[in-house]
Amino acid sequence: MSIAIMSSGGDCAGMNPAIKYFVERSIFSGLKPYFIYDGLEGLIDGNIKEATFTDVSGIIHLGGTIIGSSRSKRFFDKQYRQTAFSNLTKVGIDKIIVLGGDGSFRAMDIFCGEFDLKFVGIPSTIDNDIYGTQYCLGVDTALNIIRSSIDSIRDTAASFKRAFVVETMGKECGYLALVSAITSGAELCLIPEMPYDLKHQKKQILTELQKGRRYVICVVAEGMDMTQQMVRWLEDEIGMETRATVLGHIQRGGNPTVFDRLMASQFVEKSIDRILSKEICKDVIVYKDSEFEFVDINYIASNKYQIDDDLIQMYKKDY
Amino acid sequence: MSIAIMSSGGDCAGMNPAIKYFVERSIFSGLKPYFIYDGLEGLIDGNIKEATFTDVSGIIHLGGTIIGSSRSKRFFDKQYRQTAFSNLTKVGIDKIIVLGGDGSFRAMDIFCGEFDLKFVGIPSTIDNDIYGTQYCLGVDTALNIIRSSIDSIRDTAASFKRAFVVETMGKECGYLALVSAITSGAELCLIPEMPYDLKHQKKQILTELQKGRRYVICVVAEGMDMTQQMVRWLEDEIGMETRATVLGHIQRGGNPTVFDRLMASQFVEKSIDRILSKEICKDVIVYKDSEFEFVDINYIASNKYQIDDDLIQMYKKDY
Amino acid sequence: MSIAIMSSGGDCAGMNPAIKYFVERSIFSGLKPYFIYDGLEGLIDGNIKEATFTDVSGIIHLGGTIIGSSRSKRFFDKQYRQTAFSNLTKVGIDKIIVLGGDGSFRAMDIFCGEFDLKFVGIPSTIDNDIYGTQYCLGVDTALNIIRSSIDSIRDTAASFKRAFVVETMGKECGYLALVSAITSGAELCLIPEMPYDLKHQKKQILTELQKGRRYVICVVAEGMDMTQQMVRWLEDEIGMETRATVLGHIQRGGNPTVFDRLMASQFVEKSIDRILSKEICKDVIVYKDSEFEFVDINYIASNKYQIDDDLIQMYKKDY
Amino acid sequence: MSIAIMSSGGDCAGMNPAIKYFVERSIFSGLKPYFIYDGLEGLIDGNIKEATFTDVSGIIHLGGTIIGSSRSKRFFDKQYRQTAFSNLTKVGIDKIIVLGGDGSFRAMDIFCGEFDLKFVGIPSTIDNDIYGTQYCLGVDTALNIIRSSIDSIRDTAASFKRAFVVETMGKECGYLALVSAITSGAELCLIPEMPYDLKHQKKQILTELQKGRRYVICVVAEGMDMTQQMVRWLEDEIGMETRATVLGHIQRGGNPTVFDRLMASQFVEKSIDRILSKEICKDVIVYKDSEFEFVDINYIASNKYQIDDDLIQMYKKDY
Repeated sequence: MSIAIMSSGGDCAGMNPAIKYFVERSIFSGLKPYFIYDGLEGLIDGNIKEATFTDVSGIIHLGGTIIGSSRSKRFFDKQYRQTAFSNLTKVGIDKIIVLGGDGSFRAMDIFCGEFDLKFVGIPSTIDNDIYGTQYCLGVDTALNIIRSSIDSIRDTAASFKRAFVVETMGKECGYLALVSAITSGAELCLIPEMPYDLKHQKKQILTELQKGRRYVICVVAEGMDMTQQMVRWLEDEIGMETRATVLGHIQRGGNPTVFDRLMASQFVEKSIDRILSKEICKDVIVYKDSEFEFVDINYIASNKYQIDDDLIQMYKKDY
Repeated sequence: MSIAIMSSGGDCAGMNPAIKYFVERSIFSGLKPYFIYDGLEGLIDGNIKEATFTDVSGIIHLGGTIIGSSRSKRFFDKQYRQTAFSNLTKVGIDKIIVLGGDGSFRAMDIFCGEFDLKFVGIPSTIDNDIYGTQYCLGVDTALNIIRSSIDSIRDTAASFKRAFVVETMGKECGYLALVSAITSGAELCLIPEMPYDLKHQKKQILTELQKGRRYVICVVAEGMDMTQQMVRWLEDEIGMETRATVLGHIQRGGNPTVFDRLMASQFVEKSIDRILSKEICKDVIVYKDSEFEFVDINYIASNKYQIDDDLIQMYKKDY
Repeated sequence: MSIAIMSSGGDCAGMNPAIKYFVERSIFSGLKPYFIYDGLEGLIDGNIKEATFTDVSGIIHLGGTIIGSSRSKRFFDKQYRQTAFSNLTKVGIDKIIVLGGDGSFRAMDIFCGEFDLKFVGIPSTIDNDIYGTQYCLGVDTALNIIRSSIDSIRDTAASFKRAFVVETMGKECGYLALVSAITSGAELCLIPEMPYDLKHQKKQILTELQKGRRYVICVVAEGMDMTQQMVRWLEDEIGMETRATVLGHIQRGGNPTVFDRLMASQFVEKSIDRILSKEICKDVIVYKDSEFEFVDINYIASNKYQIDDDLIQMYKKDY
Repeated sequence: MSIAIMSSGGDCAGMNPAIKYFVERSIFSGLKPYFIYDGLEGLIDGNIKEATFTDVSGIIHLGGTIIGSSRSKRFFDKQYRQTAFSNLTKVGIDKIIVLGGDGSFRAMDIFCGEFDLKFVGIPSTIDNDIYGTQYCLGVDTALNIIRSSIDSIRDTAASFKRAFVVETMGKECGYLALVSAITSGAELCLIPEMPYDLKHQKKQILTELQKGRRYVICVVAEGMDMTQQMVRWLEDEIGMETRATVLGHIQRGGNPTVFDRLMASQFVEKSIDRILSKEICKDVIVYKDSEFEFVDINYIASNKYQIDDDLIQMYKKDY
């Protein structure tokens, strides 16, 4: 029996440990593991190879994904999905583990509905913006990379009266920015899910500066598109020399943390068990209150992720 | 109203963020925050001072505890506890948050029973060996320090046919060693909670070496006292040049991870709320299935921590 | 006899180790060490305090400068320099070690010419753009922070066909960008000191992409002001999805590397010896071919820093 | 024309960047680059393959050496050297770059004297114990790994009255231990090159503890074999609870620092130029006062490395 793994959409730290555990556990379970390289594009192009222990030796500490990823427009065209299916049947694969986001899971849902295939999706995105799961692979590593950057900025901030704007990833979801602000002691945080009142903030910051505060750190989610605006605001309204740091894809790479490795291990193990035990399987594994569950892709796709209100309250208490 | 914080027993990363959040939230709640320096010894010696924002500025990224810690024999003597109580009443403190382990909590239980005092204990120990809670402050940081060390060893291990023994902390509890072995892909793990069969291991390792494996990494919990023995075993029985790394207190320091900072924030916030809301309070906050609860110190003290069996199964599947 | 240390202008990693060594060696030499806080502004405001061992305990691993820094317009006004001099004479200081750049050294040159003062300047700037010295404090730490960021980006770059632009510090000097490009294997580097030919680059990159290259990393010095332009160029001319990372002040903080600590130790030790041994001292310590020398501030101020041509040749050989 | 690279003896960080630069520069110079895998053992076994760009993509940030290394007894036997020579001639290699220590260079000297071969040796060992060069590849990375460990220990040391013994690598050479002690502010350092007087140290440490010092860090070079002895000394003579950290091979792995990458680049480039320009070449490249030179292997082999006396003086001034 053959089983394949594929990463799809934006990559994240934690994918490589997942790939390693996938190969090891497949082999121990008597399955033949395959890699689908370069996501859905590679699936269409037949870029599929059997995986061995050697392929996954020395990858557990690497960020990104050694099997590559992609976004695919062609996959929306049934003709290419037909090709993809032929590629899989040639090597006898009918079971696929997908590391990706909800877009990728929806594509797989259509694909596995058309053909006789099973899949389990493992939520993998540093944005942590998938409905139904409290954790997506890669988030802990991304948060710790941001932490290390803000810690470094604080060193220099404390030396010189100055303000800093740090832009984190997160288009519609401010999770990374919010948790970073709370755990790095930033003074200001702007995310899509939380209204802000710059007049109030100005008053508060000016009061703190009078009391002796030397610097201001403002964390902004990329999706706000306000980084340059906040630099000007801090210079003009607060009167401090201000510099921006745009972290960008630094947040996606980096050595996966222990938490991401452990989650990768559990996500993969339980996903393989699931796909083996069900006749029809178009599921996504989710993590909720320390438990793993399986939900239908439609459950995830039909709802929008909401940020944990406790985090917003925690931030508000501080500011 | 006054409230104090104290660290007691072995220190760990995460204590400084907890201390910072304690000061900030106490002040925002209208409380006067105090530091008890150097644990129970400092409590006896009256080393108690009011804390300000300035005291906790720039400490969130430091390992250890800026207020010091200690173990105290004197505190077992009622006369010294009487002195300790006088020191507290002088400055009007009747509420204490304690960062420590079960030994410290038991001492506080006696102390608060004798005098009119309230306390909440926050489990803080890298060993993660406190009954009733799934998480103790400092564990995530310790695990990531071990990870980074084993990653570094693997680089050199892969270059040269050689074996390595890595000793982690953990006297009666192998949690750190076991999770490290799983998430670092170590070949061998020896902890107090798990029987081992070196004959079987020998057979398995020799088979893998014949198949092309170049190196062996063995993680040993300190409490096994088997580090040197395993070096000899690997040299004599497996026939590989072997070197030991004893991580020691590296595991206790280091910049607290985001997870430890976030746990520190939540532990402290909920503990302050608790101590304010109860007439009598001799509680320990615990983390269980993503929820925070309060349990009586006797509940914790009367049971022995058991390692999560899922982790042992996860390890066994790999080996 | 009293001696003071001051940081002036932009801060950098390495200043704190220098401050620690300054205090320790002054005391061992029988001198009374002083801190001038917040640079020239603090000098005018009389923010000067005697320093003790305790002040410098636990600072060797902190980025930035614990005594603060500033830029000062007031210092150009003789009246304020007169005030500054009075502040120094009050506590008997006539010897000052200055951690800063050539602007700060010129200001000190004027100041020490007017009054009976001696100073030694220690080149301290991550830009490495001071004429006469091959090394400025903070450069090695900044380079290693950039390295770690580009390594992280490469992880994700290799997973997905994509291009990245990384902006490093450096206004008129491309040292950081150039060394980072060489040591991180970046494909493209744009600095003020080196002409570039985007047409030629385009041809070369397209050829490499055809041969199988998956990603392009472009390092740009801040002073080029070309980060956004290069993002568009890579998207439009090369046809790759492109993302920018602006490192900003991350480069100034961070735990000082061993090289920066060792240079701090030697810079400080030799500067103290120098200032004690000369009647008149308006010198800057420089590092040249593994040797330390002292040069007149005018020698430094009258020449413009030139980037090492060997580095440019090294880069060109690769591309 | 063909050229090969080989790592021999103990591995170190910096070897992988050197291997990457070797392949790139060989190809740009019109040479065919080869890897000799697993050092002299692989040379005897004919484990030799042509190298491509793909082989060295994504290795610049990995510790150790991707081509493996070994120590070889067989190579002392002429018969095996004859086999080794045949393996080389089969693929037309007569030029070899060797990453290793003086033992490996001596073996190459004999080998290249017997057969018509040329080699350049690049000093590569974290011990920094090769006569004639001020720098060996890998040293800067090793020093920064030790730094990070001692910084972590200091966090916890400052929290609790306690002493620590840290054992660094270095059999006959205390370079790593000495530089680490200076740049990490350790109180005590024991290396083979420096006499010590524990009675005097005891007096001094006890005085400092009375003045308020809370902890003691002692750095010991492995070759002293005194780690356990110093733990007992600190417990018995100084009266402090003491813990040991044995860093071991952590020091050999790890992401190569910028300095090691830049040295790798220059060592390799100049070595290739040298081997191409000379008829007979049995040289070692050395780094001296910021310049690269070539010396005969006999010059290196006939003298014993001496530690820089300036470093010893620097340490003594502090203690």
